[in-house]
Amino acid sequence: MKYTHHNNELNMKHLKEHVYLKGWAAKNRNLGGLIFIDLRDRFGITQLVVKPENPFYETALKIKNEYVIEAKGVVIERESKNMNIATGEIEVEVEKLTILSVAETPPIIVSNDTDALEETRLKYRYLDLRRPVMQNFMIKRHEITQAIRSVLVEEGFYEMETPILGKSTPEGARDYLVPSRLYPGTFYALPQSPQIYKQLFMVAGFEKYFQIARCFRDEDLRADRQPEFTQIDIEASFVEPNDVQTLVEKVMVQTFKKVLNVEIESPFVKMSYQEAMEKYGSDKPDMRYELLIQDYQHVFESISIPLFENKPSIRGLVLENGSGLSRKKLDALTGVVKKNHGEALVYLKKLEGIVTGSIAKFMTEEQLESLKLNEGAILFLVPGEFEDVSSALGALRIELANEFNLIPEQSYKFLWVVDWPLLEYSEEEQRFYAKHHPFTAPEDPKVLKENPKAAMAKAYDIVLNGYEIGGGSIRIHNQDVQKLMFDTLGLSKEDIQNRFGFFVDALKYGTPPHGGLALGLDRVVMLMTGTANIKDVVAFPKTQSAKDIMMQAPSDVDQIQLEELQIKVGKS
Amino acid sequence: MKYTHHNNELNMKHLKEHVYLKGWAAKNRNLGGLIFIDLRDRFGITQLVVKPENPFYETALKIKNEYVIEAKGVVIERESKNMNIATGEIEVEVEKLTILSVAETPPIIVSNDTDALEETRLKYRYLDLRRPVMQNFMIKRHEITQAIRSVLVEEGFYEMETPILGKSTPEGARDYLVPSRLYPGTFYALPQSPQIYKQLFMVAGFEKYFQIARCFRDEDLRADRQPEFTQIDIEASFVEPNDVQTLVEKVMVQTFKKVLNVEIESPFVKMSYQEAMEKYGSDKPDMRYELLIQDYQHVFESISIPLFENKPSIRGLVLENGSGLSRKKLDALTGVVKKNHGEALVYLKKLEGIVTGSIAKFMTEEQLESLKLNEGAILFLVPGEFEDVSSALGALRIELANEFNLIPEQSYKFLWVVDWPLLEYSEEEQRFYAKHHPFTAPEDPKVLKENPKAAMAKAYDIVLNGYEIGGGSIRIHNQDVQKLMFDTLGLSKEDIQNRFGFFVDALKYGTPPHGGLALGLDRVVMLMTGTANIKDVVAFPKTQSAKDIMMQAPSDVDQIQLEELQIKVGKS
Repeated sequence: MKYTHHNNELNMKHLKEHVYLKGWAAKNRNLGGLIFIDLRDRFGITQLVVKPENPFYETALKIKNEYVIEAKGVVIERESKNMNIATGEIEVEVEKLTILSVAETPPIIVSNDTDALEETRLKYRYLDLRRPVMQNFMIKRHEITQAIRSVLVEEGFYEMETPILGKSTPEGARDYLVPSRLYPGTFYALPQSPQIYKQLFMVAGFEKYFQIARCFRDEDLRADRQPEFTQIDIEASFVEPNDVQTLVEKVMVQTFKKVLNVEIESPFVKMSYQEAMEKYGSDKPDMRYELLIQDYQHVFESISIPLFENKPSIRGLVLENGSGLSRKKLDALTGVVKKNHGEALVYLKKLEGIVTGSIAKFMTEEQLESLKLNEGAILFLVPGEFEDVSSALGALRIELANEFNLIPEQSYKFLWVVDWPLLEYSEEEQRFYAKHHPFTAPEDPKVLKENPKAAMAKAYDIVLNGYEIGGGSIRIHNQDVQKLMFDTLGLSKEDIQNRFGFFVDALKYGTPPHGGLALGLDRVVMLMTGTANIKDVVAFPKTQSAKDIMMQAPSDVDQIQLEELQIKVGKS
Repeated sequence: MKYTHHNNELNMKHLKEHVYLKGWAAKNRNLGGLIFIDLRDRFGITQLVVKPENPFYETALKIKNEYVIEAKGVVIERESKNMNIATGEIEVEVEKLTILSVAETPPIIVSNDTDALEETRLKYRYLDLRRPVMQNFMIKRHEITQAIRSVLVEEGFYEMETPILGKSTPEGARDYLVPSRLYPGTFYALPQSPQIYKQLFMVAGFEKYFQIARCFRDEDLRADRQPEFTQIDIEASFVEPNDVQTLVEKVMVQTFKKVLNVEIESPFVKMSYQEAMEKYGSDKPDMRYELLIQDYQHVFESISIPLFENKPSIRGLVLENGSGLSRKKLDALTGVVKKNHGEALVYLKKLEGIVTGSIAKFMTEEQLESLKLNEGAILFLVPGEFEDVSSALGALRIELANEFNLIPEQSYKFLWVVDWPLLEYSEEEQRFYAKHHPFTAPEDPKVLKENPKAAMAKAYDIVLNGYEIGGGSIRIHNQDVQKLMFDTLGLSKEDIQNRFGFFVDALKYGTPPHGGLALGLDRVVMLMTGTANIKDVVAFPKTQSAKDIMMQAPSDVDQIQLEELQIKVGKS
């Protein structure tokens, strides 16, 4: 490491100093015999200049973009300064120049802006990552990781590792399997989360655990999902929900301060699941803007409107200055509503003091007045079941916020969504599913036993700008309650024994009350760096079909490998 | 977290304070009506006392070992003090007592000493980990990890993650495979190390990378190996071997200081591979004791001894005061030599001024004198090929050191083994293997081309107390040299393209010179905590047959899982 400065460091204070630099040739220009080279490293750019009489002029002539070079030189003042970069007032007059590595013309231009296809970027990921904007994503990821960890370590949490080769316990997502060579026909599974292990750490008495843990789900991927992802996994004993929340708030406040120099207010807002669905139509409300959903049931219950008849929920939201929306736009919004389980989208707008719209004819002047619309406002109404109306209006709310630029930039709104139902009932399968996971403690085990549909969970999700960035709960620490939970989920005694037997066993030797949370690191980094693409914050991501285009994985393997594992490929 | 103190904190300074404690009942005694409870947490033990007139006396009577309890009470002075524990001068007179969790009698006694079988300990790992000695291993692991990381972060290294679902590139150890559901018949592989990824980070221009990385090898396990293990993976650009070594020395010195308060001297000794084999008979010499191997070829070349005839190497080592070894012991030592490729073990001992032994009769007085044995010493000699003699004497050296307690306790001797051959030739397969891995740079590519057997590597291993705790090298950063290396290893063009094509490609777009190292974290923790069993420092280890006894993994999976993956179990 024989260089003296990074490429962002030199300025007028260094005039006449002799320096050693290294990096990549980002740009080369030959102006009237003078050769200028922009030398780039992970920190920035310094301009080198080589005069025709320089003994290294021949070397300089050979240098092309992306060559790796080493230069010794003296810092001089530039004639035409570039105040956009840190080193823009100076340049380095070369005294010695060495080419360390040559480069062919890269298939991706190494600059912040790129028009390369995603496929090309993924194939040449090592070049895509050379672009300063991508380097910044990775470096921010590093900084965020360190900041989060340092709070947890200060708070007395132990960082402990759990196995990647675990046991398949299918519940929820699909497991990735790993065939065992020593026990042919059996399989390990990659963990969907270290949930059971971290609870066992509590059984073992470690009290405070965390891990920056790799997790795996073999699911059909959405845009913001990867088959492997990283979570900040936290668990503590002798805690109430508020203890975990306070800890995580501290983690977030300090991380935002350290990495972005942004002050986050705490404690965060707490909102019940019910309220989130009522007012935001979402269990992960974006609180950066208002546009709240309101209940209009009371307005319409005495009015006979065919579309609204026998609808348990009639709710809507008001967009100020929205009355000018074109028919085409309104049709598009109806499309959004219908795609999100809404039966219909009805609107009323106020222009020049008069409220108009398809249902206006069913309403008296007084009834229209009671809507209290401002001049230029438009009211969107959706009738239907509570859940469907919530979902439709939640989607409409986001659509309108984007359309009308209602979302302030550089704004970070955290909240806790609390008071979750413990279970979800699938009418189709006639069975309950755990709303979070089967280890979440019920508020009251009696209710779980007697009326599972009404059972509430000691669960909490942390939401940032409309994204769920983490979820947690107090866990079941009592063997009987855990068995009751598995029963309610319809697991047979045998199932319980096979899948979770050792865990139910573990609960009986003195398990402290405990709880925790997992934060999605990839998502946190995505939100903190302001990118919308999760692939931007993962060094070597996979495509939506779980392919590594660069490495060409998954791939064929040698027949002998399959023979050793005693598995065969093909449908049975 | 409503408790006021951990269970190691209270002492005479806290007399009369009212405190809240929590933990596990480690021991309960009923002495003349007084109930004493040792309350344990991860920090230590505090004694609770409950008098018969206490309203919580009934509760106290119910408490058995490993119950989880919460106590409020007042700190009082103990009558009979226990100066062995931090809280031994006081006890807490209980004012309130709550049972948080009951416990059945555990199958393992929760104390430092255990006579439980390893199988039982692994099955009930969550209880085994509750033993204070095991908690200490895990906590030390945490501390070591933090200490190592903090040096690297301070030195400007970025912590970056690489995929676990990678590509199979069989070379060296066996890969664990993961069948792909979306591309039936193809497989991911779990990484044996992030080697290629970290080099790609250098290609991408990050310059300084590290990761605490999980690695996987499907090998038949030895006692100190696990199928998954953790390495501190480090890579940097624009470095020479000495830069990497200096960095790692800093990591080690600071970690030993912080965690063990032990001063390690640096720079570490550097020893060539050749010298290590000559003097220690090992490429990972234990320098805590002498007992060096010496060359006796010159002594015997002029003496006709049948056993030594035509032997290219005759070396040996002298054990002072070893002449009293019994015949039985000597036979056992011969066994050690023969098990380690030694042809024979010959010894000469000096007693009462006379040197005796089976070969003494072939030697003159003068020749015997020239051995310069001290009174009571024994000289062990092994004839044969250099490698075989080295291996045999290396094993003998360790055996004698253990037998004669020559190894000082709490002593840490680091060294670098340098100047490695680049390749190993397998006579059997008539091909070369990379002594480290195929990305290691040769000292001189010309030699690699013209006389591969003589090619030396820019490689270095770090050795502590006879264990290789890490290895590294400067890497090949030139596409042509990388191709030459693959050629020399006998990979066909097609092989290279299929397995490493993308990587050879990556080298051509401006790759900086780079190098690095990987430290075996599990081994470092093992050596720093003084345990001989790697399982002690892994939270949830597997058996030597790669089984997780607690979880019962690997295990059968549902048929539907295999159908989705389109694989079948069974020999082909």
